[in-house]
Amino acid sequence: MSFLDRMKDCSVPDLSTYLPFVVGDEIVGYVKPSFAKTLNDFQDTFTITEDRLELNQKLHSIQERTQGISEVLESLARSGIVSGWRGERYKVSRTYYEPTVFEIERAAVPLFGTIGCSVHINGITWRNGKLCMWIGRRSLTKPIGPGKLDQIVAGGQPIGISVRNNLIKECAEEANIPAEIAVSSKSVGALTYIVEQPEGLRRDVIFIYDLVLPEDFKPENTDGEMEEFQLMTMNDVMSRVQETCDFKFNCAFVIIDFLIRHGYIEPDHQDYLKLISSLHNPKL
Amino acid sequence: MSFLDRMKDCSVPDLSTYLPFVVGDEIVGYVKPSFAKTLNDFQDTFTITEDRLELNQKLHSIQERTQGISEVLESLARSGIVSGWRGERYKVSRTYYEPTVFEIERAAVPLFGTIGCSVHINGITWRNGKLCMWIGRRSLTKPIGPGKLDQIVAGGQPIGISVRNNLIKECAEEANIPAEIAVSSKSVGALTYIVEQPEGLRRDVIFIYDLVLPEDFKPENTDGEMEEFQLMTMNDVMSRVQETCDFKFNCAFVIIDFLIRHGYIEPDHQDYLKLISSLHNPKL
Repeated sequence: MSFLDRMKDCSVPDLSTYLPFVVGDEIVGYVKPSFAKTLNDFQDTFTITEDRLELNQKLHSIQERTQGISEVLESLARSGIVSGWRGERYKVSRTYYEPTVFEIERAAVPLFGTIGCSVHINGITWRNGKLCMWIGRRSLTKPIGPGKLDQIVAGGQPIGISVRNNLIKECAEEANIPAEIAVSSKSVGALTYIVEQPEGLRRDVIFIYDLVLPEDFKPENTDGEMEEFQLMTMNDVMSRVQETCDFKFNCAFVIIDFLIRHGYIEPDHQDYLKLISSLHNPKL
Repeated sequence: MSFLDRMKDCSVPDLSTYLPFVVGDEIVGYVKPSFAKTLNDFQDTFTITEDRLELNQKLHSIQERTQGISEVLESLARSGIVSGWRGERYKVSRTYYEPTVFEIERAAVPLFGTIGCSVHINGITWRNGKLCMWIGRRSLTKPIGPGKLDQIVAGGQPIGISVRNNLIKECAEEANIPAEIAVSSKSVGALTYIVEQPEGLRRDVIFIYDLVLPEDFKPENTDGEMEEFQLMTMNDVMSRVQETCDFKFNCAFVIIDFLIRHGYIEPDHQDYLKLISSLHNPKL
């Protein structure tokens, strides 16, 4: 088992087996042809041709588009095709920093292969001179990755809140980290990857923060999203990522990035550059 | 002026204007057709066709290939086509971690577009509670980037020495950093980029280290490669990179990576993901 095994999930899928999802002139996502067929029932909103799924051009404004798609998704949720409804809206655009073309319910993001953005925090502290990391275990009721290991705090990035404010909110909800500690989180980079997962095509951007926690701080979940937290030495975290699939796939990516940034994986590791390039897809 | 201006150099050049340089079945570099014509005078070593430059297949071993190319390069150096001879040999291979196919004089690396690997160290320290960075000014006699600003220590990665041992050697030569301090350098990642520069096509891998220096340490150059060192606050370093071209192009990349890893450039910066992806070319 190797760190690169964790990245196998990360080998960019063959997007030619998908139909580009086009709004105006821009590709904002990718859908499976089978899902496009399902959308054929909603011709007020979607137009399906042989080589693309198009949003009906009559839907001009962000609001009209969001409303039209929302109605389709509610119908698909009733028939069980869209599951794990979150009630959180994500921004849809060609790349994260370009203008919003519409908003979409988070649960539908992988079905449409639009960009999904989130924030992950490495919560670190010291015990007996050893660097340790607080690791969460995801609730067994989570729609994705139930029971898997996770960062101390991680959350989707809904529209209408800054990344830093979202981080402070998630710190409170997921680990009972008070705002006065959460604000000391240090922005340290971003991961971008395109992978196929059971829930669909994930084109993900993860903004990463490192947070040094006081030695006497103990996280507690307040929103039911985490089963428990455990403090692990970095060596334990490292071997758990290297030798098992216990971490949720993208939480393992965040750990690998941490191990590279903090000198636990060095240039003499034969997979060093492959790991780094797997974590940075230039298309996102 | 913006950080992204520094990366303009970094937009991947059109490799279709180059001929692939092939050894056996592997592309190990790229040459300009004009340079390939020059090599046509050396048909014992090179075979030029319309779509590629090939190393003569009679040269089987690493030693035979290295010897054959070395003789050609010495001749080209005498006629001034290869300049800035270093007397350092670089590894040539398809990617940095794959087996060596031959060794090449460092000065010829950009002419053949083979991978050039180096190590750069961010030398940081504190003054009056502010994070500062030691910045070197390159010697005016350097073949590349004379007089430009640089990391405190940076050096090519010749074959036959580990990255970490090279770093310790360069620390002593370039900044008189004793080995007992140099060993505390922390490996923090790698940059990979393909750019066109006056010296040719650079396909570069930079292994990056952060080194926290004692407050009373003052660097001194011992090998004549640096004119001087100055201690700059991170805010000064940041605006110098953002607003001027004073830094050698790839030293600016290393600073931008530092600014991202240390939270000086955050996700709300509209070029955040573009900067990160420019620093990680998946082909290297």
